[in-house]
Amino acid sequence: MSNSFPITERTRLVREAHRAVYDREAIYKILDEAFVCHVGFAQEGQPFVIPTMFARIGDAIYFHGSAASRMLRGLSGGVPVCITVTLMEGLVLARSIFNHSMNYRSVVALGKATLIDDPAEKLQALRAFTEKLIPGRWNDARQPNEKELKATSILRLPLTEVSAKVRTGNVEDDADDYALPVWAGVIPMRLVADPRRAM
Amino acid sequence: MSNSFPITERTRLVREAHRAVYDREAIYKILDEAFVCHVGFAQEGQPFVIPTMFARIGDAIYFHGSAASRMLRGLSGGVPVCITVTLMEGLVLARSIFNHSMNYRSVVALGKATLIDDPAEKLQALRAFTEKLIPGRWNDARQPNEKELKATSILRLPLTEVSAKVRTGNVEDDADDYALPVWAGVIPMRLVADPRRAM
Repeated sequence: MSNSFPITERTRLVREAHRAVYDREAIYKILDEAFVCHVGFAQEGQPFVIPTMFARIGDAIYFHGSAASRMLRGLSGGVPVCITVTLMEGLVLARSIFNHSMNYRSVVALGKATLIDDPAEKLQALRAFTEKLIPGRWNDARQPNEKELKATSILRLPLTEVSAKVRTGNVEDDADDYALPVWAGVIPMRLVADPRRAM
Repeated sequence: MSNSFPITERTRLVREAHRAVYDREAIYKILDEAFVCHVGFAQEGQPFVIPTMFARIGDAIYFHGSAASRMLRGLSGGVPVCITVTLMEGLVLARSIFNHSMNYRSVVALGKATLIDDPAEKLQALRAFTEKLIPGRWNDARQPNEKELKATSILRLPLTEVSAKVRTGNVEDDADDYALPVWAGVIPMRLVADPRRAM
């Protein structure tokens, strides 16, 4: 297996091409760190984007399919989707407004998603969802019974057309602006467990 | 102006309808708190979902349009988009795997996005982007010159078809499961400025 995903016409970055990443391990890492993905699908030309839980197993993304699955009924061969995963990692405060930006790592995966029928594969996906939240949780909690498995819609998207876009590092200002008396820098951001938050 | 957005056929929640929110102030709050939105658009039946900076001004969402703007050229009347904004707020660890969930607040806005031409409106949008990162930043940093304004693509989506979906509060387990010897609870999550993160 290659260390990088192949670049296709649809995954080649046109804008800011230097931020493109096709490296398999870097893409896995982004997918494995994020809790939520955004699933895009189109219905009669109107796009819809739905946030949902997901997990990667090997070269496939599994995601909860309540919304997308409605349109899947009757469609064999799967439905075209775009799954996007974004980690927001910093506010980039430049000396000029124009160069303000964010640090982030994001993955865009294109392809056709199909509903899983096989109960064993469903179990495997649910296990991946759960272990992602808290490692070990699958064995701690009561595992799904047959009725619950039937009530769960999970879709699979094979990772074939995939790209990442990554901005890291410091502010990039225009040469003339570095002399301006303006504080500039990156404020790192992180999603954390926060016991202070009101429940 | 009504306190709630009208419910349309496309924004009526079918699944978990009790989590639907159409209240204007609640929807504004979600949009104003999030740094990133996910913009969905379709090209020849293939959906694409791109993360980007955005800000709300009144009843419109403004967003950076580098990706979507390419397909806009030549299209008058705008392009159908879906803008989705998600705040992940907690891991919900139930006694059963089936009832594991997340706390979140998300907004889905549907409509046609158009490119902004008016330099004054562009400035207003850039100001909103910047003030959202750090209040006061617009006046601290060097403001855009004419060339930079021309190089910036910004799109506007009027907030007309909008819904939010919100899960808050505690674990909801099946009645029989409460007696199980399994720890259950919500781990609150929050995006924070984190000076410990390596830059």
